[in-house]
Amino acid sequence: MTDTQALTVDAAVTAAQSAFESAREVAPATRATWLDALADALDAHREELVALAHEETHLPEGRLGGELTRTAFQLRLLGRDAATGEPLAATIDHADPAWGMGPRPDIRRVGEPLGVVGVFGASNFPFAFSVLGGDSAAGLAAGCAVVHKAHPAHARLARLTASIAADALRAAGAPDGLFALVEGHEAGTQLVQHPLVKAIGFTGSTAGGQALAALAAARTEPIPFYGELGSTNPVFVTPAAWEARRSAILSGYVGSFTLGMGQFCTKPGFLVVPAGSRDELVAGLADAAPVPPHAMLSEGLRSGFERARDELAGTDGFEVITTLPGAEGAPEATVLRASASTVIAHPELLEHEMFGPASVVIEYDDPAEVAEVAARIGGQLTAGVHAEDGDRSVDIPGLLRTLSEHAGRVLWNGWPTGVTVSFAQQHGGPFPATTAPGTTSVGTAAIARFLRPVAYQDVPDAALPAPLQDANPWNISRRVDGVLTLA
Amino acid sequence: MTDTQALTVDAAVTAAQSAFESAREVAPATRATWLDALADALDAHREELVALAHEETHLPEGRLGGELTRTAFQLRLLGRDAATGEPLAATIDHADPAWGMGPRPDIRRVGEPLGVVGVFGASNFPFAFSVLGGDSAAGLAAGCAVVHKAHPAHARLARLTASIAADALRAAGAPDGLFALVEGHEAGTQLVQHPLVKAIGFTGSTAGGQALAALAAARTEPIPFYGELGSTNPVFVTPAAWEARRSAILSGYVGSFTLGMGQFCTKPGFLVVPAGSRDELVAGLADAAPVPPHAMLSEGLRSGFERARDELAGTDGFEVITTLPGAEGAPEATVLRASASTVIAHPELLEHEMFGPASVVIEYDDPAEVAEVAARIGGQLTAGVHAEDGDRSVDIPGLLRTLSEHAGRVLWNGWPTGVTVSFAQQHGGPFPATTAPGTTSVGTAAIARFLRPVAYQDVPDAALPAPLQDANPWNISRRVDGVLTLA
Repeated sequence: MTDTQALTVDAAVTAAQSAFESAREVAPATRATWLDALADALDAHREELVALAHEETHLPEGRLGGELTRTAFQLRLLGRDAATGEPLAATIDHADPAWGMGPRPDIRRVGEPLGVVGVFGASNFPFAFSVLGGDSAAGLAAGCAVVHKAHPAHARLARLTASIAADALRAAGAPDGLFALVEGHEAGTQLVQHPLVKAIGFTGSTAGGQALAALAAARTEPIPFYGELGSTNPVFVTPAAWEARRSAILSGYVGSFTLGMGQFCTKPGFLVVPAGSRDELVAGLADAAPVPPHAMLSEGLRSGFERARDELAGTDGFEVITTLPGAEGAPEATVLRASASTVIAHPELLEHEMFGPASVVIEYDDPAEVAEVAARIGGQLTAGVHAEDGDRSVDIPGLLRTLSEHAGRVLWNGWPTGVTVSFAQQHGGPFPATTAPGTTSVGTAAIARFLRPVAYQDVPDAALPAPLQDANPWNISRRVDGVLTLA
Repeated sequence: MTDTQALTVDAAVTAAQSAFESAREVAPATRATWLDALADALDAHREELVALAHEETHLPEGRLGGELTRTAFQLRLLGRDAATGEPLAATIDHADPAWGMGPRPDIRRVGEPLGVVGVFGASNFPFAFSVLGGDSAAGLAAGCAVVHKAHPAHARLARLTASIAADALRAAGAPDGLFALVEGHEAGTQLVQHPLVKAIGFTGSTAGGQALAALAAARTEPIPFYGELGSTNPVFVTPAAWEARRSAILSGYVGSFTLGMGQFCTKPGFLVVPAGSRDELVAGLADAAPVPPHAMLSEGLRSGFERARDELAGTDGFEVITTLPGAEGAPEATVLRASASTVIAHPELLEHEMFGPASVVIEYDDPAEVAEVAARIGGQLTAGVHAEDGDRSVDIPGLLRTLSEHAGRVLWNGWPTGVTVSFAQQHGGPFPATTAPGTTSVGTAAIARFLRPVAYQDVPDAALPAPLQDANPWNISRRVDGVLTLA
């Protein structure tokens, strides 16, 4: 078994390396047509893919259809962005005998693709963070080859997607092996340890991510491990906002934390609000419309969720204040309550993730406690504020600053679920949210993770990589002698 | 002793954090005046600084004067680059109801300074990679506060430089504590472990760097460790170039590997040339003019160098073919020889660093061996080629591609010592050259290491950081709805 898998991973990675080498000098505009072909293929197989995804994940078909749209869009956007050359950060310094520290040689830098990239899919987004998800799109857009470790929670969907991808890439003229799928726990380990693999993209649990990150760091040649792990995504409500629109806030909150059965890394795990009547809070939550419940992604996730929820419910200072009905095979959505003073005294509780439909309302007696709670949140993918125009009921600038120190994305009067794919998106954050806080796994900036800058000194024009040649054959924006020049 | 040091590091870091917070919203153009003030202060104290550096390091005064010029230039260039806003990568996506995956919120991303940065100085560049060297300049330019761990090999110079820096920063209006010096091995450990320290810049030995990197990774909150460790900087000579200008190549080689007594991380450790007469090679080396010898930086480095040299000299297939006279207290410069087949069979020998005036000439019998040796070099700061115009004596495109896969900087008909500070510079490379191959420690791109991107979603204009506000108060180039817009 192990030997067979070893052969499979080694064969996939070796073929991927060959494909990478044969394709590495392909212009990014051509590469973009390969990503377009993948997107078109997803669209063409929409019905089949969504049906199978629904069967394996229990996620509603409507949501899966939207996720497929997002995934195809993501492939096209990242391909198009690579074609502009922007991720390459091409920089040209001409020789300058009068340079202030002494004569400067001709020196030119560009991002070069790392080689074969290993990608681990997540169970909760069977399209957008899986086989042809963001990490794969970013790797391919960067010019890398991708070997994807399938998530066992949707193994058949993974195989179908990979087969569609292989056909689409072949038809588009990409070299065989540029994208491959491997399966099994052992294969994942081998992928991280394979000498030809030069970076890992991972979305999943903190424990799984840390174990793989340790393997990546222990290699003879340690490689970058881009892990998106856990986050509790706290949302802070000012007294003024709570006074003005409590009902709307609770409705948005319940909708956000029950979306997809709470199986989002951006689920709001904590809502920090002014203290008040327990009955009014419970009534407000009961008025809010939860997203219709459905079974969780797997039995393992369900039992893990229930364990995490019950553990917090049994912690001093925490109580369950309401549950919302579940469905067959689905746990009840649960709201817990605690006081700000409890989490100020035990900030580690603010990192307690419950991957499922549960969240905690934290009540503060004094608006000054908002800053104290905010100062104690760990690294987060997101953190949010609900406030009014001209709100002075808490120190808003101070709060935003604190949240920006802890999170990759700061939201105003919004909810963290829903992560747009765009140029400015930042889906990342300090540890434990990710293992690489300087990078993002969503949006066009994700491409740069799979490039490594290389400088060329005094290399003749014809021997330079295309993006650095004087004639600018790829027609990209470059920084020349310190000045940005547009394509 | 330990308690006193703990207090000192904690006091320095705590004061640095306060200074960081009070200065974080200062416009980069103002911050640039602080870096200018540091550069001006170095220039003003030039005589005193160079004399003390010479006394402690034994490096020639001429070289030290040049290094001081470089260091002041670096401070000014990085400050000026930060003032353009380019390192911030400010990106604005306006809300777009027609966005292809569904309505897009307003989302804006900018690099924000990490906070307090710890910097470890190197012994071999008492100015350029020390107290006010590249890492400190990059940290300050990014908007961080810097706590610098002095290198014991030039402790008095470090104190003098830090004192000049404190005066200059105060006179320029920077908050007290923005830059501080700590000393001692234990202080270094505490600096890496201090919870308020958010990144480490390190230049030094592989062993020291790996130990500190492990500490950084083992923190409750692991932090980025930007370590520049070791490199052997191989240079490959084609048959045609060897035929055309052997004497000039050997002269450049000897000048480069003996510069600064070989105490450069970019010293060419291997010169790969066509096999030929031993006598002719020895004669060519004897004709080359070595840089005048002087004492090494420390007795410890000298004995370490001699051990590393003797170890390689005693390895099967290696022999010393010539030595060039040393000086009082200085070791002889030494050239060793080995065959390409030896290092092809034992590629680990290509990573054997001798930090001092020694280098190895590797002779190949068949030009095809050039590619085989190149494929076996480890991660390097630099790798070089000497070739002729239109040279077909080896596969030049293939060689350049291989070298670019292993090195941060690829040189053509040049020598790796001498690292210009510019926009396109890349001083980095895959492990073991550095612990962060996606980044550079020299040049303006070094600033980005100390920024972390943060996205703001639907945040009102007045509450946004200045670089993201509609009015663009810092007047910087930004990417708006995917399109670069110049300042």
